[in-house]
Amino acid sequence: MSPPKPIEYREASPAVRAVFDDIKTSRKLEDVNNFWKYLANDPTTLKRTWDSVKEVMAPGALDPLTKEMIYLAVSVSNGCGYCIASHTAAARKAGMTEAMFGEVMAVTGMANETNRLANGYRVPIDPAFDR
Amino acid sequence: MSPPKPIEYREASPAVRAVFDDIKTSRKLEDVNNFWKYLANDPTTLKRTWDSVKEVMAPGALDPLTKEMIYLAVSVSNGCGYCIASHTAAARKAGMTEAMFGEVMAVTGMANETNRLANGYRVPIDPAFDR
Amino acid sequence: MSPPKPIEYREASPAVRAVFDDIKTSRKLEDVNNFWKYLANDPTTLKRTWDSVKEVMAPGALDPLTKEMIYLAVSVSNGCGYCIASHTAAARKAGMTEAMFGEVMAVTGMANETNRLANGYRVPIDPAFDR
Amino acid sequence: MSPPKPIEYREASPAVRAVFDDIKTSRKLEDVNNFWKYLANDPTTLKRTWDSVKEVMAPGALDPLTKEMIYLAVSVSNGCGYCIASHTAAARKAGMTEAMFGEVMAVTGMANETNRLANGYRVPIDPAFDR
Amino acid sequence: MSPPKPIEYREASPAVRAVFDDIKTSRKLEDVNNFWKYLANDPTTLKRTWDSVKEVMAPGALDPLTKEMIYLAVSVSNGCGYCIASHTAAARKAGMTEAMFGEVMAVTGMANETNRLANGYRVPIDPAFDR
Amino acid sequence: MSPPKPIEYREASPAVRAVFDDIKTSRKLEDVNNFWKYLANDPTTLKRTWDSVKEVMAPGALDPLTKEMIYLAVSVSNGCGYCIASHTAAARKAGMTEAMFGEVMAVTGMANETNRLANGYRVPIDPAFDR
Repeated sequence: MSPPKPIEYREASPAVRAVFDDIKTSRKLEDVNNFWKYLANDPTTLKRTWDSVKEVMAPGALDPLTKEMIYLAVSVSNGCGYCIASHTAAARKAGMTEAMFGEVMAVTGMANETNRLANGYRVPIDPAFDR
Repeated sequence: MSPPKPIEYREASPAVRAVFDDIKTSRKLEDVNNFWKYLANDPTTLKRTWDSVKEVMAPGALDPLTKEMIYLAVSVSNGCGYCIASHTAAARKAGMTEAMFGEVMAVTGMANETNRLANGYRVPIDPAFDR
Repeated sequence: MSPPKPIEYREASPAVRAVFDDIKTSRKLEDVNNFWKYLANDPTTLKRTWDSVKEVMAPGALDPLTKEMIYLAVSVSNGCGYCIASHTAAARKAGMTEAMFGEVMAVTGMANETNRLANGYRVPIDPAFDR
Repeated sequence: MSPPKPIEYREASPAVRAVFDDIKTSRKLEDVNNFWKYLANDPTTLKRTWDSVKEVMAPGALDPLTKEMIYLAVSVSNGCGYCIASHTAAARKAGMTEAMFGEVMAVTGMANETNRLANGYRVPIDPAFDR
Repeated sequence: MSPPKPIEYREASPAVRAVFDDIKTSRKLEDVNNFWKYLANDPTTLKRTWDSVKEVMAPGALDPLTKEMIYLAVSVSNGCGYCIASHTAAARKAGMTEAMFGEVMAVTGMANETNRLANGYRVPIDPAFDR
Repeated sequence: MSPPKPIEYREASPAVRAVFDDIKTSRKLEDVNNFWKYLANDPTTLKRTWDSVKEVMAPGALDPLTKEMIYLAVSVSNGCGYCIASHTAAARKAGMTEAMFGEVMAVTGMANETNRLANGYRVPIDPAFDR
């Protein structure tokens, strides 16, 4: 009946250690975050999720800081406490200043407000948006 | 019992026209979007919302394109059809390329997935995130 | 593979007709709304849901108009298109004016905004709220 | 200004005790969970909610384990901490193994991701789904 | 990497103090809640949010108690822990009784249930709601 | 400014065709659903998402029908119209009967209701759930 427990490196299977090693190398960390230690209870999900996050968060058309701020905005919108803490930290590490944090919050708050105003007033999509 | 109706410029009160004029000037538009025409049913909410959006979306520590992409990511996360259409258009106008759009979607999708994995595994916040 | 279909009174079983009759009598309607016609595909859920809605929405410590406005605010927050339409109609029937509708929308929008600001800034609960 | 408090059996009214007794008998528990002790502040909601949960979660076309895993998936998606803990426990009691838990989490995470990709790409419903 | 910290009055800038003073006067409080102390990290968002909340929550077509109960219902629906605590307190201060609280919860719960039933059964909007 | 468009097989790149071919073979379909045609605008996301869905939805500790019903329950909870339609179809194809569909809806609705009751009453987690 106990809740999920973290898997530490010393007790991890070779498959889990391989993912942990890749996370530590890619992210230049001494240890992986709790998120990965808990996912390690399901090595398949651990590997798939890490491979996906690594691919999605790599620099591309958007830089890592922009991606982290988007991740944070979504996590705030969904109210995921763990994710808000971890992606605030990640975004700061990627260069987010206090002023940037304030603006991410302001945009996230405003989007949540106007999303509901659009719902409530049942606003039809402007034809111009579909051309 | 009829649903809300849009208020067109020609039938709008002076207070509503003043807001519409400011939107058109600030955004360099010939007409305001449906969102504003529907909010015009409540001139107080119209003015407050426009003043807030104008302040929040102005260039600051973040550029307008980054802000529009965050707005879009939140709207996608909340499933607001009108806001997805209007902020996709706004982000494109601000310079979002197809490749950037693809990455905003990829990050938004991944954040929604890992937010739930963190919830379900009941992952405690790492002390390092609070130092 | 077809989506759910509505059950009309003429084709309904006696158990479904009994619920439809009670809805029509209680709500003083000539026919039930689509919501009930679709739920009728599962007579158990139809009866349980109607019995619950009837009990919850009856006048009590709160009057029916206040209850309908709360129902509308939640539906707007969740982005349920059908529910926004049906509970806007129900609230108007219960006495909601245009001005009241505008204020329900304004409060709903503001709550959605500040909910996210509280999440993002990770605001701890004031001890005074727990005394 | 104090938050809701639990109602213990010894201080409960006969109406609340009757519900508590039925929960304990049906669920083979020595005491009811906190959820029911808090709902007991409103005996009408307590009784209606228990009667509904009892009906909905009874074996039918779906077995109790499948129902508990669906309940857990929805609770994870909504981020309800209490419900995640209580329905993880309930699902385990009904036979959910560690491997099943991992797969419920994986499906829940994936659904949350693709729900947003479908929103963001504004994918129209295939005609085949409506035939 | 540390999380946001509250700004206390004694360390606040004149701009922040002016907002804090207005909150304390308007709300007849000796000190502002944590929400405002955290928002004070971004004085622009602090001022805009307070001005908006003050305008939206003022008595109008709806009385302050009704507004606070709607705010609470939305916060419960979104699962914002801080907001549930603060708006339960605010609603009680505005006159919400235990019985009223119970009914707000009952309506909020029922709306969340039927919102999903309407989604899942894909119920089309009744033409009568659009006339 | 136009919204995303579907990519048909005949106009697709070899990389996209390879994914489409794998979907058609795995799912025994003559053509892929709109979801995949729209994701094809971003071949990287298309491939990653398909590989993940294929892995997650494969038979394992849970059978495909159970997985599809969980997917449907989450999609209903999130209000994703496309996903509700596509996963209702997929679940039916995997063997979901009308009675099973009704019970998935009933459980999903009930979970959404009690999630909010637990939020609103601020119910603390029972120590027994953590042992």
